[in-house]
Amino acid sequence: MTRMTARSLNMVVVVLTLSVFVSAQNKKPNDARSAREIRAVLDRQVEAWNRQDLESFMSGYWNSPNLTFYSGGAKTAGWKETLDRYRNTYQSEGREMGRLEFSDIQIEMLGPQSALVRGRWRLKTQAGEPNGLFTLIFRRLSGAWKIVHDHTGSST
Amino acid sequence: MTRMTARSLNMVVVVLTLSVFVSAQNKKPNDARSAREIRAVLDRQVEAWNRQDLESFMSGYWNSPNLTFYSGGAKTAGWKETLDRYRNTYQSEGREMGRLEFSDIQIEMLGPQSALVRGRWRLKTQAGEPNGLFTLIFRRLSGAWKIVHDHTGSST
Repeated sequence: MTRMTARSLNMVVVVLTLSVFVSAQNKKPNDARSAREIRAVLDRQVEAWNRQDLESFMSGYWNSPNLTFYSGGAKTAGWKETLDRYRNTYQSEGREMGRLEFSDIQIEMLGPQSALVRGRWRLKTQAGEPNGLFTLIFRRLSGAWKIVHDHTGSST
Repeated sequence: MTRMTARSLNMVVVVLTLSVFVSAQNKKPNDARSAREIRAVLDRQVEAWNRQDLESFMSGYWNSPNLTFYSGGAKTAGWKETLDRYRNTYQSEGREMGRLEFSDIQIEMLGPQSALVRGRWRLKTQAGEPNGLFTLIFRRLSGAWKIVHDHTGSST
């Protein structure tokens, strides 16, 4: 009986130790993979923007009424509303989408399913080069990384 | 031998099931507690600001060179540099700290040790009422919730 209990406890200790070990080992490779996946979302957004494809650009965002987009003093809520805002700002009469560039991208994991992305944006247009800083919150939703909150500022 | 193995396996299953159960049970109360703790940090910041105590206000921020503060097009890195920026903007000749108010605060957990906070700020000063939106990233560091990134915009 004593031997059986000791053996049971040993096995429990081994399983728990293995779980901790496996979870510690997985952390870094998973973080690196997540960062690569997030970087790929940003790269696809830039490519979409530069072929004037706003719908594809918007596929980087969470398709939900709970998506939030802060720019200047204005708060936009919802995926559709954010797309409309982009259309009004960049595709209406006399507006220009220009050529988008991201730089100084910093991707920091905040948990296994969430990340903070900081960076700079610059638009090369005929009228000038508006630019500024952005803060993005990504979440992994149904296996895909999506922007759930975007706070974009402008220097100009 | 067969009975011993079965017993060991049973115990392993019980321990693993209990771990999962305890972790699922803890999630919600912990999230609610974290949100209350974060809300308390914000409340203390507002109180400190309104008694012109910038150092106490700054205790809500991560005391690290890696703290980042985005405002307009300007990026400030570091706790000391962020304090200096606040001093220059609000305590230098002819400037006024005014009375700070936060509203529309939304606290969303991004993991057990990290959270996204969205809200509006308003400063009541003699010269007017500057206001805008903010995005804060909190992390629990050594048991205390601290702002590790602040993106603040202005409507004015």
